[in-house]
Amino acid sequence: MNNIFAAIPADLTSEVFEILAQSDQVKIERIISKGHSSTETGWYDQAQHEWVIVLEGQAIIEFDDQTTITLSAGDYLIIKPHQKHKVAWTAPDIETVWLAVHY
Amino acid sequence: MNNIFAAIPADLTSEVFEILAQSDQVKIERIISKGHSSTETGWYDQAQHEWVIVLEGQAIIEFDDQTTITLSAGDYLIIKPHQKHKVAWTAPDIETVWLAVHY
Repeated sequence: MNNIFAAIPADLTSEVFEILAQSDQVKIERIISKGHSSTETGWYDQAQHEWVIVLEGQAIIEFDDQTTITLSAGDYLIIKPHQKHKVAWTAPDIETVWLAVHY
Repeated sequence: MNNIFAAIPADLTSEVFEILAQSDQVKIERIISKGHSSTETGWYDQAQHEWVIVLEGQAIIEFDDQTTITLSAGDYLIIKPHQKHKVAWTAPDIETVWLAVHY
């Protein structure tokens, strides 16, 4: 049995992206962050919808209209295609476990 | 902000299915169970893949080869198209919160 909170990689120097399931139209992935942000790599600008939930930890997403959203465990949102966004902050002391569905 | 653990319906006489996001190919839904099973309604026999995770509570899924899988918080699996299955049991005293992605 796979558990979304298990097998957290010991090396979290970079964020860790793992594909849990995939088809032609859909990608389900787990993302582990620990103090990471995407502010230096620029905006995410995705062709697909992204339904994303924080299952553990805490994160702040920033949109290019300068609004920010703070996500705690259980919080979810839909990011529309080409809705530019960054991960502005993730908790530095604990792992943040995300589940993202790209569709 | 929507939270997957919030707004649990007061009336859980029946299981509660709520669509969180949907496209032509994908349906993301929250399911709340409390002591429910699908043993009386027969086998689920679905045309699509289902990626399903238990986020809170506990459940047992039964397959038609008589294997069973017990799911606790964080446990997930993929149910293949036409892999017949039932929810054999869910925790009677607490809510079981499922997230299912049909694709």
